[in-house]
Amino acid sequence: MTTRFDVLNIGNAIVDIIAHAEDDFLVRENIIKGAMNLIDTERAEHLYSVMGPASEQSGGSAGNTAAGIASLGGRAAYFGKVSDDHLGTVYTHDMRAIGVHYETAKLPGEPPTARSMIFVTPDGERSMNTYLGSCVELGPEDIDEEIVASSQITYFEGYLWDPPRAKEAIRKAADIAHANGRRMSMTLSDPFCVDRYRDEFLDLMRSGTVDLVFANEHELVSLYQTSSFDEAVKAVREDCEVTAVTRSEKGSVVVTRERTETVHAHPIEKLVDTTGAGDLYAAGFLFGLTNGRSLEDCARIGGMAAAEVIQHIGPRPQVSLKDMLAQEGL
Amino acid sequence: MTTRFDVLNIGNAIVDIIAHAEDDFLVRENIIKGAMNLIDTERAEHLYSVMGPASEQSGGSAGNTAAGIASLGGRAAYFGKVSDDHLGTVYTHDMRAIGVHYETAKLPGEPPTARSMIFVTPDGERSMNTYLGSCVELGPEDIDEEIVASSQITYFEGYLWDPPRAKEAIRKAADIAHANGRRMSMTLSDPFCVDRYRDEFLDLMRSGTVDLVFANEHELVSLYQTSSFDEAVKAVREDCEVTAVTRSEKGSVVVTRERTETVHAHPIEKLVDTTGAGDLYAAGFLFGLTNGRSLEDCARIGGMAAAEVIQHIGPRPQVSLKDMLAQEGL
Repeated sequence: MTTRFDVLNIGNAIVDIIAHAEDDFLVRENIIKGAMNLIDTERAEHLYSVMGPASEQSGGSAGNTAAGIASLGGRAAYFGKVSDDHLGTVYTHDMRAIGVHYETAKLPGEPPTARSMIFVTPDGERSMNTYLGSCVELGPEDIDEEIVASSQITYFEGYLWDPPRAKEAIRKAADIAHANGRRMSMTLSDPFCVDRYRDEFLDLMRSGTVDLVFANEHELVSLYQTSSFDEAVKAVREDCEVTAVTRSEKGSVVVTRERTETVHAHPIEKLVDTTGAGDLYAAGFLFGLTNGRSLEDCARIGGMAAAEVIQHIGPRPQVSLKDMLAQEGL
Repeated sequence: MTTRFDVLNIGNAIVDIIAHAEDDFLVRENIIKGAMNLIDTERAEHLYSVMGPASEQSGGSAGNTAAGIASLGGRAAYFGKVSDDHLGTVYTHDMRAIGVHYETAKLPGEPPTARSMIFVTPDGERSMNTYLGSCVELGPEDIDEEIVASSQITYFEGYLWDPPRAKEAIRKAADIAHANGRRMSMTLSDPFCVDRYRDEFLDLMRSGTVDLVFANEHELVSLYQTSSFDEAVKAVREDCEVTAVTRSEKGSVVVTRERTETVHAHPIEKLVDTTGAGDLYAAGFLFGLTNGRSLEDCARIGGMAAAEVIQHIGPRPQVSLKDMLAQEGL
């Protein structure tokens, strides 16, 4: 089949509500710093009532990756469930406006579109509080076979194991992708998410359902329940064809059966908000990979895209990453 | 009566939808650059369909001023009309979260909460496209007499002459304020707004309905239909007790019957988005004035607050202006 998209991205479609907060606020409100905390309606109302002035921007891990790929000039598609409400309109607008193909059927009624209240502390770290809303309705019926079959890579987030039926959607997508000679990729998403679904994630890798894994070092060591990064790298080498591991200011490491490639972090002026860092790294990497670049170049492009997004508030690029790529000579 | 608030702010309650755009986009879409363009539902839908990925933040000229005063540590109240919808909830949240007293009754149904699509060009200039929505319903019944009587200054935006009944609300507020020995202040808002209501604005000044006027140089020369700034200053000296005129990188000029005080612009690193510059200047100035500072100091504090807001996307302070004031020794 003709390749229509470089990367199809599947994830929880979430609008971010972003505010600054001090560390003692996180402690007082029992928010796990740096993590994605799942919340219900009642807690969402409480947290909003104590939250400072905020800005709203479309987010969602794989949604940010899709936006990043489009900003780099890649062909991106997205599957994710919003509701037919204000935030759903905003989410759809932002996706299409950056050039992502996004046609997942909107939920006609309740629950409302998902939102994540993100508190950014003075050190630039983000702590997320996610109300999944309409994302719980994503299922196999939302998998458009033609799009999966015509995408070089289908990429999804580990967070999709939280809603009840999204994993069925992913298994369906994986079957279609592999039947068409395409590749599957995932991100481990979050150390606590890894803790919730460790065995299932390992099975996805060991069964070959997933060919390329993204993780940060915390997620990787959580996956193998070890405190040693080197041990985790040794283990993942056996379990997955290609693994790209981000290590914040230490750059990233690409692990294959044969070798380990280390790439320095892209220099930044000031860390403002880490939201979207991993998502944009994946965007750059996947853009590189689907454009025939070496794994080392993929990691470099990923580092560049991540560097852009952590220097401003919000999870998606605010400049053309395609222009940035040209300027950097990458 | 005891003073409960330093400044009561009255204005069009608007959520800003902010995106980057190139100059040729403004030309193609017939948007007057640097101005506030009023739009109807149909045009709002069209512009949103061609707008890039956006972020949403509470705005509205006098609303931004209220937020600025609260951020400086001043006691601020606000009157403005939102609807009982998602954006109305967001607007109310952001106002209260920064510490502004805001209790204006929400419109129970249509029209929806106002929004302004703001395009920020690479030079940092903002061009606004405002759908007034529920703001058209603001009227004298929204003027809480006790709050007007207990506020040192009541400040409002010239933009309030656009909706049909807000001017009646302002006249009512002015009567209450002056009967209680309080002062009235306004901003001329926008050169085209001045053009629409020139005679009425001059009458507000000459009749003593307004004691303190804020304007930028374009609005001031528009008011007197002259191309000479010096001529406009000479004219306004006769018409108003105190006028504070902002001149972008040239700083600001405070004009009274007796003298003219010129204050340099506050230094900045990089101009990102001018949205809110005038509103935050007014916030700093009014905070100074209601705290017994000299007119020169008022202009300096205004310049500082404006400098903060133009160095990031969005119309309201992203740091505590109170802390900034202390750091600057102002």
